[in-house]
Amino acid sequence: MTRYKVTIEYDGRGLAGWQRQKDQPSVQQHIEEAIYKFCGQEIRIQGAGRTDAGVHALGQVASFEITGDYSTETVMNAINFHLGEAAISLLDCTVVDEEFNARFSAKSRHYLYRIINRHAPLTVDQGLAWRVKRNLNSDAMHDAAQLLIGKHDFTSFRAVACQAKSPIRTLSRLDVSRFKNEIQIRVSAMSFLHNQVRAMVGTLSLVGLGQWSKDDLAAALAAKDRQKAGPNAPAHGLYLTDVDYDN
Amino acid sequence: MTRYKVTIEYDGRGLAGWQRQKDQPSVQQHIEEAIYKFCGQEIRIQGAGRTDAGVHALGQVASFEITGDYSTETVMNAINFHLGEAAISLLDCTVVDEEFNARFSAKSRHYLYRIINRHAPLTVDQGLAWRVKRNLNSDAMHDAAQLLIGKHDFTSFRAVACQAKSPIRTLSRLDVSRFKNEIQIRVSAMSFLHNQVRAMVGTLSLVGLGQWSKDDLAAALAAKDRQKAGPNAPAHGLYLTDVDYDN
Repeated sequence: MTRYKVTIEYDGRGLAGWQRQKDQPSVQQHIEEAIYKFCGQEIRIQGAGRTDAGVHALGQVASFEITGDYSTETVMNAINFHLGEAAISLLDCTVVDEEFNARFSAKSRHYLYRIINRHAPLTVDQGLAWRVKRNLNSDAMHDAAQLLIGKHDFTSFRAVACQAKSPIRTLSRLDVSRFKNEIQIRVSAMSFLHNQVRAMVGTLSLVGLGQWSKDDLAAALAAKDRQKAGPNAPAHGLYLTDVDYDN
Repeated sequence: MTRYKVTIEYDGRGLAGWQRQKDQPSVQQHIEEAIYKFCGQEIRIQGAGRTDAGVHALGQVASFEITGDYSTETVMNAINFHLGEAAISLLDCTVVDEEFNARFSAKSRHYLYRIINRHAPLTVDQGLAWRVKRNLNSDAMHDAAQLLIGKHDFTSFRAVACQAKSPIRTLSRLDVSRFKNEIQIRVSAMSFLHNQVRAMVGTLSLVGLGQWSKDDLAAALAAKDRQKAGPNAPAHGLYLTDVDYDN
């Protein structure tokens, strides 16, 4: 058996998210089927982040074991070949030791959220960013966002259906910056609750619109109640960009 | 009659280019039909650049006259509304005087060509950039490209079907730069021949691959023969980014 770590890029449009679903095409299923076509082995792969339907990845990571001694180049090229027209692509492949697990070995996860702040409908960025028509004050968003840095109970920013045992997470970065009419939000933590990034971005957009103050955000965090924070930002603005591991 | 200048963004995928075609949907036709739906006037609009099928625009410019005295905001919002699901969007609208013509008043046109230089198939950038698998030396491309700056007979870099009377054009900028695995080529001139940017990029890619020297590029330019330069780069990597006018 050889254990591989792969880095994966995908366009979330038309995909039911990372995880296998009964009746819709997921990233996991596409890759597992490509592995089967390549070497005839029916295996399950482990992903670092279970991205929702519509969410993109520039650097998702997965691990799996297959019997045989294929070179990393063979594994990567064969899987890419068998992925065919699916908008999923392996960018890198390395051999890892048997203790490595893409999900449990991850030291931190990094997400990017893209907002295009303009009135005109999107064209080339359609499905790749969230358009917000009214003007957002990105400096106010960044300033308020710093409240969320550190270790907190993020119950107000987790999906009601979130299955994590603890609502405590430690946010290490939440930067909001503007380039012309594009606002980029970069978020890092060891791990996230279900929908946490989208709930934080949706809530910060209320600050950007001037509807919420920094104190309102602090009160929403302290309330530990999903009803007290803002709505989820749409999935299609979100990108899993990197996952860090030791070495 | 009021004369308007509009700035237009579009995703070239699924569009037969700027200019009206007999049997395929063009950007011009979509916009003219949206104007008709808005105010019932059947007019022809004039575009600054006649982009080919598949070519994108971030800042195409067009001008037209309609009867009435609609505000620029009304014109822009109404056309955007009637464009519906077409991936075409008006970003700006201003009133201009009757001498203004988007095509003939243009002082310079700016294009961007995007290459993703990697082996893995594209996902989020599919249809939005040209993937070149083998390594390109972007410094060598930039260095050779400077040969093309200035006033030249660009016969070697124009489509055989190009209808321009003169093959002489004056190139003011041709910069090749790399950001990680993305190579961006920025090109400016008062005007371009048909397929000129794509022919220059395709030829420069031969330099980037090490197949052509700077001298080979100089010889191709001097030959004044389309057969002596390289192939056209694909349309879907090309963006019309800006058009400049006086004031």
